[in-house]
Amino acid sequence: MSGDLSFDPRSGAAAASVAHTSADELEELVALAVAAASDVRDVSPIVRRSWLDAGAAAMEENAQELVRIADWETALGSSRLNGEVARAAGQMRFYAEVAVDGAYLGAVIDQATPTTPFIGRLNVPLGPVAVFGASNFPFAFSVFGNDTASAIAAGCPVVIKAHPAHPLTSQRTFEVVHAAMVAAGAPVGIASLVFGYGSGVSLVKHPDVAAVAFTGSQTGGMSLWKLANERDVVIPVYAEMGTVNPVVVTPAAASDIATIAQGFVQSFTLGSGQFCTKPGLMLVPRGCNATKLVAEALEDAYPQPVMLTEGIANAVATGVGELQDAGATIVAETSSTGAGWSTAAVLLAASVDVLQRGNRVLEECFGPVAVIVEYDRLDDAVAAIGSLQGALAGSIMIAEDDPDARTILAHLAPKVGRIIVNDWPTGVAFTWAQEHGGPWPATSNPKTTSVGAAALDRFVRPVAYQGVPEALLPEPLLAGNPWSIPRRVSGTLEVADRS
Amino acid sequence: MSGDLSFDPRSGAAAASVAHTSADELEELVALAVAAASDVRDVSPIVRRSWLDAGAAAMEENAQELVRIADWETALGSSRLNGEVARAAGQMRFYAEVAVDGAYLGAVIDQATPTTPFIGRLNVPLGPVAVFGASNFPFAFSVFGNDTASAIAAGCPVVIKAHPAHPLTSQRTFEVVHAAMVAAGAPVGIASLVFGYGSGVSLVKHPDVAAVAFTGSQTGGMSLWKLANERDVVIPVYAEMGTVNPVVVTPAAASDIATIAQGFVQSFTLGSGQFCTKPGLMLVPRGCNATKLVAEALEDAYPQPVMLTEGIANAVATGVGELQDAGATIVAETSSTGAGWSTAAVLLAASVDVLQRGNRVLEECFGPVAVIVEYDRLDDAVAAIGSLQGALAGSIMIAEDDPDARTILAHLAPKVGRIIVNDWPTGVAFTWAQEHGGPWPATSNPKTTSVGAAALDRFVRPVAYQGVPEALLPEPLLAGNPWSIPRRVSGTLEVADRS
Repeated sequence: MSGDLSFDPRSGAAAASVAHTSADELEELVALAVAAASDVRDVSPIVRRSWLDAGAAAMEENAQELVRIADWETALGSSRLNGEVARAAGQMRFYAEVAVDGAYLGAVIDQATPTTPFIGRLNVPLGPVAVFGASNFPFAFSVFGNDTASAIAAGCPVVIKAHPAHPLTSQRTFEVVHAAMVAAGAPVGIASLVFGYGSGVSLVKHPDVAAVAFTGSQTGGMSLWKLANERDVVIPVYAEMGTVNPVVVTPAAASDIATIAQGFVQSFTLGSGQFCTKPGLMLVPRGCNATKLVAEALEDAYPQPVMLTEGIANAVATGVGELQDAGATIVAETSSTGAGWSTAAVLLAASVDVLQRGNRVLEECFGPVAVIVEYDRLDDAVAAIGSLQGALAGSIMIAEDDPDARTILAHLAPKVGRIIVNDWPTGVAFTWAQEHGGPWPATSNPKTTSVGAAALDRFVRPVAYQGVPEALLPEPLLAGNPWSIPRRVSGTLEVADRS
Repeated sequence: MSGDLSFDPRSGAAAASVAHTSADELEELVALAVAAASDVRDVSPIVRRSWLDAGAAAMEENAQELVRIADWETALGSSRLNGEVARAAGQMRFYAEVAVDGAYLGAVIDQATPTTPFIGRLNVPLGPVAVFGASNFPFAFSVFGNDTASAIAAGCPVVIKAHPAHPLTSQRTFEVVHAAMVAAGAPVGIASLVFGYGSGVSLVKHPDVAAVAFTGSQTGGMSLWKLANERDVVIPVYAEMGTVNPVVVTPAAASDIATIAQGFVQSFTLGSGQFCTKPGLMLVPRGCNATKLVAEALEDAYPQPVMLTEGIANAVATGVGELQDAGATIVAETSSTGAGWSTAAVLLAASVDVLQRGNRVLEECFGPVAVIVEYDRLDDAVAAIGSLQGALAGSIMIAEDDPDARTILAHLAPKVGRIIVNDWPTGVAFTWAQEHGGPWPATSNPKTTSVGAAALDRFVRPVAYQGVPEALLPEPLLAGNPWSIPRRVSGTLEVADRS
């Protein structure tokens, strides 16, 4: 029987493997999710919060063990991984609070009028969700990461496909968190974990799976999206995919180019460049020595990137070759240690003329690789922005009272899900306002986000209850507002007093 | 040059034709929409309201002429059509008010904390929208119907593809309303009208079109959805398609079966059965004589249906044949006048055993055709509900303190976008709570609605503004809340005082 091998990326050594889930096992796990669906749907968000809080606490209590396994499997370092465990636990608590707030329920009540009937509107959970864990965040975007936590908070059980980059981490995280949630009263089918590429495909095709959440590559996300679109009953695929995440430095901001150069290097090499928000392309005004300064900053920083998998390490080399074929030139390159899945960090430069729609330089190269482009006139920068694909995030570096800030912002905003002023795109806070999505092809559904309060919205759909008597209405629509949620009643938005 | 011929459905006689839009003309019209997009996007919703109000007034002022043309082209009758003009005008005003309310903007502000940056979140308009007018509502779901009005209210210019069932109505409505909106200050590119199947295809493929809204058949909606999914940059297609819209009568409700029988006939023959919410399938308890009573009610009502087009009239006959092939039997049939696009109204009966997933009886047959199914035990009705496809709406007829009401509602709600108690699915109020959508294949995006306040949500996407200084923020996110819209600020929902 085949399985996911666990590797040490620092050496390339393999440890135990985790068996792939068989077709029969997968059927049993989906059936468990189906059996749990109405319970998870019908309890109040306060109950679901107690489950998620228990899971978060368990993750924190077992941080030491989880980080040890994850560091061995991912080489991301225990400092980063400890932070990530804390973040994942924080996310679970945050999505639980968003659910309790209840705005995600979209409750609306139209009282009957002489010409229109009573209608109550409510967002109801879709049912079992297939979650695809990411390679690059073994906790925060993985087994109990943003997708799982927001799906459960919204009232949906999940079946999680573990990423093969860290099977042991996935397995142990699942055991610890799932047990705590079940001990807190959640049904066993609240979450299940499966392994193997075939299991992922089976989930997307399974008639009882109602939605898919994915974080990863364009290739992976698009193939799941296509698969779901071929079903008899098409289901939504929320694929959050990597993009080039442009940075634009205005002429006025160039006065601080040395700081920007260091920040750029730090951001594009962070986590060995394995972020979907990595800034992969920076437009700078010519004449401020930016390319040289970034090259020097890279050499000074001297990162020693170790990639998550052999495949990713190989893809970095391939990607750098493609960027060169597309017209970019290497201007700085660190040396690789040569061990395991190590690679070099690479800075390339390209002419602004290269930035034409469809050019490879406008696409993500996952890993510690970035391209710098110098422009002569602001119009050239604006034209280059026009050629960009949709991206998750884009940064603008501006000066105080910058005369060009408004122009660049106006052109860049339509291309991104998140626009950032004087900061780097890496780092995605889980807050109410966050948008971690973006125009096609950053996400398969640009109206959604995989991080932040609106992440819950992906897993519900509205139902209108026309003429339904009070005794048969769902609790959130009852006259007394027993869940104390915000509701629009006969056109007026009412915020419940929760004190 | 080819065109859309205008027919009198009552006689089959043809009048003037409207020329199909050429490829060059279409390019010019899309360019006008692109040129208008930033103006339409950036003005406050109060300004867009003034445009929509002017358009609504113009529609009402020209009602007499518009209804005359439409009655000739559609045979829907001047009473219904006068009501529909009033409704279409009311919709334009309603969506304008929804825009002014501003909740659709989804404004969220996270003030900076020691660990997270300032982030403002705002829904921004997508850009030019292609709207496909419907055959069956020449005003309310056509040129300036729900889709157009909600897209403009949300800040998007539209290019409208006229339905060939009523080219003259479409053209004249467009002239009257567009002129009034432009006179009120809207840019010329706020709306354009194109004719011809090829124009529709070109719109869906056009790189400058950002979304598609469609009301019509499964075949038409699905083909546009597939076309959009083949684009380089995939765009959302909001296709609202016809469904079977089941009605379930509980055993206790059967005591009033004579009234139900009359209501059913009235609902499924209304507008010659040409509603996407037509109840096409009714489950009734055996032993209450329901089939006989419905048959008699149909014979008493003696509708004389005239269909919108020759194609629709032919499809009714084909559909009835398919239903028979699938196991249903004709139990009552009115006679057709034989003139023009007239047809018979048909009631069929089927055994509950026929209701297996995939059976034709579970799909829409557009026109004055319905199937009645008698069940022996409630479990049989529940099993039949389980076999249903997703539908726009479903009705439950119950008695007071009905012991089976909760069970039927619990099983039917997951199948529909709108669940109705003791009323019929035809009639879709445009209110805050309305949901005119439903699970696949009722709509290509079950999270959306084409009627009601949430219709605007289809035409915006969220953008997060991280670290953006006040001077560069969009107006709705400014500290003073100049648009007086509801906003969530640092986690707390704030409703502005608009008095």
